[in-house]
Amino acid sequence: MSRSRTNSGAGELLVELRRDGAVPLHQQLESGIRERIRQGLLRADTVMPATRALAADLGLSRGVVVEAYQQLVAEGYLVSREGGYTQVAPAAAQVPSPPAGIRSAPTGPPRIDFKYSRPDVTQFPRAAWLRSIRKVLNETPHRTLGYLDGQGALALREALADYLNRVRGTSAQAGNMLICNGFAQGSRLLLQVLAAAGYRRLAVEDPSDDELRSVAAAAGLEAVGVPVLEAGLDVEALERSGADVVLVTAAHQFPTGAVTSAATRAALIEWATRRDALIIEDDYDAEYRYDREPIGAMQGLAPDRVAYAGTASKTLAPGLRLGWLILPERLVEPMAAAKLADDRGSPVLDQLTFADFVARGEFDRHLRRMRPRYRVLRDALVGRLAEKVPDLRPIGVSAGLHVMTWLPPDLTERDVTQAAIERGVGLYGLRPYWVQNAGPEGLVFGYGGLTEPAVAEGIDLLAEAIAAVRK
Amino acid sequence: MSRSRTNSGAGELLVELRRDGAVPLHQQLESGIRERIRQGLLRADTVMPATRALAADLGLSRGVVVEAYQQLVAEGYLVSREGGYTQVAPAAAQVPSPPAGIRSAPTGPPRIDFKYSRPDVTQFPRAAWLRSIRKVLNETPHRTLGYLDGQGALALREALADYLNRVRGTSAQAGNMLICNGFAQGSRLLLQVLAAAGYRRLAVEDPSDDELRSVAAAAGLEAVGVPVLEAGLDVEALERSGADVVLVTAAHQFPTGAVTSAATRAALIEWATRRDALIIEDDYDAEYRYDREPIGAMQGLAPDRVAYAGTASKTLAPGLRLGWLILPERLVEPMAAAKLADDRGSPVLDQLTFADFVARGEFDRHLRRMRPRYRVLRDALVGRLAEKVPDLRPIGVSAGLHVMTWLPPDLTERDVTQAAIERGVGLYGLRPYWVQNAGPEGLVFGYGGLTEPAVAEGIDLLAEAIAAVRK
Repeated sequence: MSRSRTNSGAGELLVELRRDGAVPLHQQLESGIRERIRQGLLRADTVMPATRALAADLGLSRGVVVEAYQQLVAEGYLVSREGGYTQVAPAAAQVPSPPAGIRSAPTGPPRIDFKYSRPDVTQFPRAAWLRSIRKVLNETPHRTLGYLDGQGALALREALADYLNRVRGTSAQAGNMLICNGFAQGSRLLLQVLAAAGYRRLAVEDPSDDELRSVAAAAGLEAVGVPVLEAGLDVEALERSGADVVLVTAAHQFPTGAVTSAATRAALIEWATRRDALIIEDDYDAEYRYDREPIGAMQGLAPDRVAYAGTASKTLAPGLRLGWLILPERLVEPMAAAKLADDRGSPVLDQLTFADFVARGEFDRHLRRMRPRYRVLRDALVGRLAEKVPDLRPIGVSAGLHVMTWLPPDLTERDVTQAAIERGVGLYGLRPYWVQNAGPEGLVFGYGGLTEPAVAEGIDLLAEAIAAVRK
Repeated sequence: MSRSRTNSGAGELLVELRRDGAVPLHQQLESGIRERIRQGLLRADTVMPATRALAADLGLSRGVVVEAYQQLVAEGYLVSREGGYTQVAPAAAQVPSPPAGIRSAPTGPPRIDFKYSRPDVTQFPRAAWLRSIRKVLNETPHRTLGYLDGQGALALREALADYLNRVRGTSAQAGNMLICNGFAQGSRLLLQVLAAAGYRRLAVEDPSDDELRSVAAAAGLEAVGVPVLEAGLDVEALERSGADVVLVTAAHQFPTGAVTSAATRAALIEWATRRDALIIEDDYDAEYRYDREPIGAMQGLAPDRVAYAGTASKTLAPGLRLGWLILPERLVEPMAAAKLADDRGSPVLDQLTFADFVARGEFDRHLRRMRPRYRVLRDALVGRLAEKVPDLRPIGVSAGLHVMTWLPPDLTERDVTQAAIERGVGLYGLRPYWVQNAGPEGLVFGYGGLTEPAVAEGIDLLAEAIAAVRK
């Protein structure tokens, strides 16, 4: 690299020119000048050096300088004046804003974080995933890379329908499935389509994940909380709520860990049939049941009344953004249209890769490998709690990636989580999950992203924190 | 596989049992019964065979049958009655809707299709893409697979900022970029954020792509058309329109192919500065300029006034769903929040793969390889038009993936496209692109997805079609 300097009416024009032919010289000159205008080093109305003079200064042919000036005139950085001289354009002389950079959180993350919904991404099956994408890139027809349809890649819908019918007891065919970018997009589109179809009131479990409520509000649906009992949603309260759509986590309620009983399932379906209402079944973590086979999905019982939602975020990695819906027939077309309008379909290579991954049994293999790992973490957590903080008793079944406990009356979420974070432990209370009124206080422990020693140490520190609060 | 039959109160229970140990027997029995209930073969209230009898019939241990029944009771398919017998549950006896199947278009696609916006996906650089994803899967830290931030993967924002600053003359840093799922999602989120920030009226070029207008309406923005002249948007008409945001395709107007002049660029920026308005620059195909270097992006002239949008849909493949925005500083945080709420970020493996692909110069290489291919197609199209249908004269510069022509006064879009489709040629009129009032009639020829012989044959058939219309 040679540096060429010139002193001229434009001030010192330091332009670094590489003469190895990789980038044409006129283009290097252009970006050099453009940069200086942008940085405010060449101000509005500055007269640029004559092309001949600049060419001589920089050791370039005049044609190169002329070409660069013409380009910058066309782009609006320079203005060509009568009389043959060139000036920096007025509009170009704006000082750019300072780089935004990467925003860092005001405080660092806790050393041991029991935040929910973190699967163990260190176990992401990279080699198997690479095998699948290699196969896809070797074999998929060219046309699959073009614009997509709204339901998603047929191969993935077929593979998932087979998998879900087998493992989750659903009633899926490729024709009633839709691929989306995780539950976030799928549920948002579903609520939008329902609102457009005249649905008005969404019942959610109380307590439940809080994110859906703001999505419902944005879609124009009123969200109401309905209490969750040991056997699932209180269907009598649902009845009174006047809701025409309900979201349930039937296989493993979030956050309580309850399993919806057969009677409640039947009552929910009876309610939906009688009221012409819809049940949204968020089957977010049913692949992880440790003590027995997971309860099959409600969707299989009443495919016309249930929209089923699943995701790879808890089983493989959130970063994949892969989710799927099984839809009642009447919702397939409006949902496909909504998905297409939203983002023209989900990225196709990911879909085809996941299709191959599922069809080859890799997904089953991965789940078989992960289940004992998570079970060990869960057992460690529950065991350590019993040992060190026995008055925090876990509720719910042995499943999923989290455990919930109530707090004894002398403790508050605020005090405990505060004392814990001071010890480097991230703990999370129930408060955001209550819908109608704040219910009893409790804690939700996510363990998916932790190791066994971290779980043990975290609970030990929690015991210390609670002792400190009680002092 | 052995087939086991039983005749019982439940009718003939044909369950196919594989005894190779791959799937537990109770599970096979469950899905067999579940399927028959679903298909209506086992009706509501049907009494199921006693576990002992069924076990004997099927050659299973009784425990297996008990386990299957319990599971199906828990799932709500069966009901356990006092007296020790088991019935098919009432709610389970719904006949599922017929499979939706794959919807086929009422008529087949045209044999030669000049539909716009189809890049040549047969040239997708599969081997180079695989190299990049292999590198990503080998090297990316685990944590990148977890939940994402709203701006997108840092590596991709850095790689694209470098690329765009170099090739498109933008003023991008990783900190003011945002990754989205193509222009569709990026523009939708941007219009939503602008509407929420109080923007009210979006001016679009007239004629222009029609899809954005419905997106604007859904976001609560009024869309108005402003005429496009040879030198770009009519800024005086923009002034009168009362718009506070304008969308321009400055480097290569769609569909007319006009390039916004330096004077118009300056006037647009002056307008935006004076009115405190925003310019959205849709840089959809600027990588493809065949006769000279493309005009740099307006964003580089006024980074605080311009939101720049780019996409890989025209350069690599629409199925990737990769797009990017360069945003004025004040829009970065609201847009990142909107993206996060929308779908929790774009799939991360695609982002990291594309980052590596760009950083290693593969994107430049791909574009260098594609430019002459498209130029040949364009030249073939323009040459054949001049030869066979000389009164359809192309307008606009030599760039992009489409050519536009006006129609002579004796021809209408309807007649010509109808006569063409009868000959197996898909042709598209301007009508959907007019905003305020229908302007003159014309045709838009997309050639990106065609071959040279197909282009020639298509124009020959168009000449026949026009001759037939004129007869």
